[in-house]
Amino acid sequence: MYSPIKRFLIGRPLKSSELGEQKLNKLKALAILSSDALSSVAYGPEQVLLVLMTISAVAFWFSIPIAIGVLFLLAALILSYRQIIYAYPHGGGAYVVSKENLGINPGLIAGGSLLVDYILTVAVSVSAGTDAITSALPFLHSYNVLIAILLVIIITILSLRGITESASILAYPVYLFVIALVILLGAGIVKIVTGDIPSNLHSPIGTPVAGISLFLLMRAFASGCSALTGVEAISNAIPSFKDPAPKNAAKTLTIMGILLAILFSGVIFLAYYYGVSPKENETIVSQLASQTFGRSYLYYFIQGTTALILILAANTGYSAFPLLAFNLAKDNYIARMFSIRGDRLGYSNGIIFLGAMSILLILAFQGNTEKLIPLYAVGVFIPFTLSQTGMLVKWIREKPSGWQIKLTINLVGALISLLVLLIFLITKFTQVWPVFIFLPLIVTWFHQIKKHYESVGEQLRIKDCAESLPIMGNVMIIPVAGITHVVENSLEYAKSLGVDQIIAVNVSFEREDERKFEEKWQKWQPEIRLVTLHSSYRSIIHPLTKFIDTIEHKASEMNYRVTVMIPQFIPKKNWHNILHNQSSLLIRAYLLYKRNVIVTTVPYHLKK
Amino acid sequence: MYSPIKRFLIGRPLKSSELGEQKLNKLKALAILSSDALSSVAYGPEQVLLVLMTISAVAFWFSIPIAIGVLFLLAALILSYRQIIYAYPHGGGAYVVSKENLGINPGLIAGGSLLVDYILTVAVSVSAGTDAITSALPFLHSYNVLIAILLVIIITILSLRGITESASILAYPVYLFVIALVILLGAGIVKIVTGDIPSNLHSPIGTPVAGISLFLLMRAFASGCSALTGVEAISNAIPSFKDPAPKNAAKTLTIMGILLAILFSGVIFLAYYYGVSPKENETIVSQLASQTFGRSYLYYFIQGTTALILILAANTGYSAFPLLAFNLAKDNYIARMFSIRGDRLGYSNGIIFLGAMSILLILAFQGNTEKLIPLYAVGVFIPFTLSQTGMLVKWIREKPSGWQIKLTINLVGALISLLVLLIFLITKFTQVWPVFIFLPLIVTWFHQIKKHYESVGEQLRIKDCAESLPIMGNVMIIPVAGITHVVENSLEYAKSLGVDQIIAVNVSFEREDERKFEEKWQKWQPEIRLVTLHSSYRSIIHPLTKFIDTIEHKASEMNYRVTVMIPQFIPKKNWHNILHNQSSLLIRAYLLYKRNVIVTTVPYHLKK
Repeated sequence: MYSPIKRFLIGRPLKSSELGEQKLNKLKALAILSSDALSSVAYGPEQVLLVLMTISAVAFWFSIPIAIGVLFLLAALILSYRQIIYAYPHGGGAYVVSKENLGINPGLIAGGSLLVDYILTVAVSVSAGTDAITSALPFLHSYNVLIAILLVIIITILSLRGITESASILAYPVYLFVIALVILLGAGIVKIVTGDIPSNLHSPIGTPVAGISLFLLMRAFASGCSALTGVEAISNAIPSFKDPAPKNAAKTLTIMGILLAILFSGVIFLAYYYGVSPKENETIVSQLASQTFGRSYLYYFIQGTTALILILAANTGYSAFPLLAFNLAKDNYIARMFSIRGDRLGYSNGIIFLGAMSILLILAFQGNTEKLIPLYAVGVFIPFTLSQTGMLVKWIREKPSGWQIKLTINLVGALISLLVLLIFLITKFTQVWPVFIFLPLIVTWFHQIKKHYESVGEQLRIKDCAESLPIMGNVMIIPVAGITHVVENSLEYAKSLGVDQIIAVNVSFEREDERKFEEKWQKWQPEIRLVTLHSSYRSIIHPLTKFIDTIEHKASEMNYRVTVMIPQFIPKKNWHNILHNQSSLLIRAYLLYKRNVIVTTVPYHLKK
Repeated sequence: MYSPIKRFLIGRPLKSSELGEQKLNKLKALAILSSDALSSVAYGPEQVLLVLMTISAVAFWFSIPIAIGVLFLLAALILSYRQIIYAYPHGGGAYVVSKENLGINPGLIAGGSLLVDYILTVAVSVSAGTDAITSALPFLHSYNVLIAILLVIIITILSLRGITESASILAYPVYLFVIALVILLGAGIVKIVTGDIPSNLHSPIGTPVAGISLFLLMRAFASGCSALTGVEAISNAIPSFKDPAPKNAAKTLTIMGILLAILFSGVIFLAYYYGVSPKENETIVSQLASQTFGRSYLYYFIQGTTALILILAANTGYSAFPLLAFNLAKDNYIARMFSIRGDRLGYSNGIIFLGAMSILLILAFQGNTEKLIPLYAVGVFIPFTLSQTGMLVKWIREKPSGWQIKLTINLVGALISLLVLLIFLITKFTQVWPVFIFLPLIVTWFHQIKKHYESVGEQLRIKDCAESLPIMGNVMIIPVAGITHVVENSLEYAKSLGVDQIIAVNVSFEREDERKFEEKWQKWQPEIRLVTLHSSYRSIIHPLTKFIDTIEHKASEMNYRVTVMIPQFIPKKNWHNILHNQSSLLIRAYLLYKRNVIVTTVPYHLKK
């Protein structure tokens, strides 16, 4: 089980008692949980300008009021989520908040959209990062999909090693990106102040724009809001923080909010002032950097850290998905395996599932996952809206001291989130309609799974009243293929159990073999009854099953149990198994699942 | 097992007694077993001209003497193989002949190269056919690999349906191709005789050519000989013929030889007389057809049937590979599963294996399998040479009446085959060197597999002398996860067997759970001993295995057997299994293969 390769990749297994050492301090948590949010600075402003550009470059001044709107929403979200963190210190974020305050279905809708969203995060961000790499190194371009998959595998392995270890490795690029952008913004402002940049490159704020419409402005605002995806990650991952977890998480969230606000508004402002417009082959950040520094080392530093953070945004998904899956699994809404801690104390099944699903998405879209971005943004604003609304209900119900202020904060948050969600649905319906198909599907699955677990639990529970019928005796059926040590071994075992009836069964394909075998058997094991079954279709399992059915029918009348005992030799080397007929495996699985018989395998280990 | 899908694809299972009805008459056999040889007319002449073209178009007249050489070799091969068919009426071809007359290793070399060769046949011919299709329909070009794989899957399914059924479907294209080429040759000769084609398009035979070398002529001759691949297929497949099988096979072989001779020499002659030279984008056959008929319906008929026969050449591999694999499996040189007849009485494992390997080759070479052609030709001439030499030895040993003539025929065949083989090795070494790596490897594998089977047989055989120690008693270990009906069911079964010792084992992750569980157990099943194992690493299998080892050690001293009894509930619907921890599956496999314990699974079938 603990192969050397596994050990090399993910490290030695950790004891359950070492869990505390796997927690994150604020510095690492900020890096690992905010990479998704911060990375959106690399594409969010561009999305706004892309929408405005459909009118004319004159309309670019609208990016300033739009950015103010986004900042306002960001502030509301950060304040709201701070309240969620303190109210729900065990994490779970939107799922737990919605479930507890709004009921099961809103909770499942929030949980389901976030689960899907984290998968989209990984696929989208890794694809975007790969594009950045292959734009810089064009000879790698035809390997785009392969590179993206390799990156997902690497991040998956890092996550399996454990959250703190991956945080240590991945913290540098995040901080380097922040430093790079701060340098860019600082230098840009210095240039503006010193007049290096002419002030006539942009249309002044308030310039009338022909053809502008509310629809278009709303669309631009919604696009800008896609920069806010990832803000909720910290509230899902509170259990990963060092104690006092809620306090540390809240502080980290605030710092992240401030950083995001500075970088986002800075990039929007510089882009506006420089009069930059989106280009097919060059990002806004790249244009700003090259106009500020030329194609110097600083330019490449900014581009490099941007590519890195796009890839690392995936890491936020890897931190939040397994914890959310754990919460859903604890409540029996998804398979229980998501609640088991792996070797390194992470919820490894969740991590592996996330990696596998993202790879499937990348393959399905051949790496062109940007089509998924609107879907992804909608998937974020659904839980945003639900969790804020849940908090509203909580404050109204509980009325703690100062609840009016808390209520106001969440009310504002809920309204803006709802507004953005509606704008998305209205302005980008052609891209986001799948959400109306997969969300109901997922919620239905959740309920079915829960129902199944409950039904199983009910059926397994022992009630004092019911007394099962006692077993009156046993019949053993032993399929035999020849007169060998393997069969001898099984027969001896069967005899040692003192069973009432032992029946050896031989399935033969050729009539002439049958008589010969019966004669030999008579000499070898005269005391054990041999039944010969003729198979016209060269199948072993069919005649055998038919025979077992007959026996089982008779046995159940007398309350006897039927055991099928399968003699099996085990070769010394594993690869030898492919040289032997694996029908015993099939027979075993078939009988166990399809018939009410007990299956015993008696191994005979070869020595050479 | 017999799912409706399987039934739909390959038809109802056939009784073993229906085997006779699955045999081929001469007409179908010719179609199915000669498609490989006949299809080489579509590319063989071109290969000759391609080599000669490296000098100049003047050298094209050499194609006539080269064609005569190829025809001579063809005649020798046909005569030789007729003798092989009568001498070895049970088929097996080069493998059986070489093995019986030259010894094991020559036999294995012949068998190994043919096995690989049939895989190459399928990959190469399907890729070539796909190229022909996508040249005609360019919008399909980017799906080349996918189309080739689909074609392989279709041919595999047809082969699984049974040899006669696939012959019925596949016979038409083969005969249409023959008809198409005969029409082309006839019309061409009429045009030549009537003087429609000017007689000055070609250099007269004997024109001196500057720069011609023996090496180059040899190379051209070897290339022409690649048209002879597939000639041996009939001798491998004698058991597929209707009785009298050898006579029918010999006749079929002769007809095939005559057809191949006419088509091959006809195409070479027309190409020479028309003065056609190989072009990048148009085949020789296409040029001949368009110069004779223009781009009329006849032209497209010829092109279409050519594409079809290239694909169907794969079918020869599907007929010959499974029979050769059966012969090798019967002698224990490859896995025994190749000797089992499937539902439709074909050796289905061989067919599926051939299909899977060809798909892997197509994927590995991304459909550009023409690189494999020289390798493939060498792989054919090795068994040609070996089988002829084997026949030589046979005649010298047995000296039947008229052996001198028979000897002469095989001697000529052996010498020419050896010559062609050497020419290939000398003139195309850079392309055929892998044969020196994979052939020794394959032969080594064959020996290892044989050795393994012999060792297993030896170990399983019951010798009268040895008396095994009687089993003194049994210990049952039952891993229990809770107090449920599943566990109750297993305990009752264990009790009913009247075993000496029953030990329930609980693996716990949390100290506090342990005491609670022990108390509950004490009340529930006081008479059954419960052992609690604590797992620090959240693994069930490790502490359990350690415990079993301890018990097993003690038990084996007293000659007791250890049985691990695994309680398992079986959900009503299959998909429910993914919702439950599959650790019991892992535990079962691990214990069975790694430890000397008997494994019993006691199913508890859920009703809902």
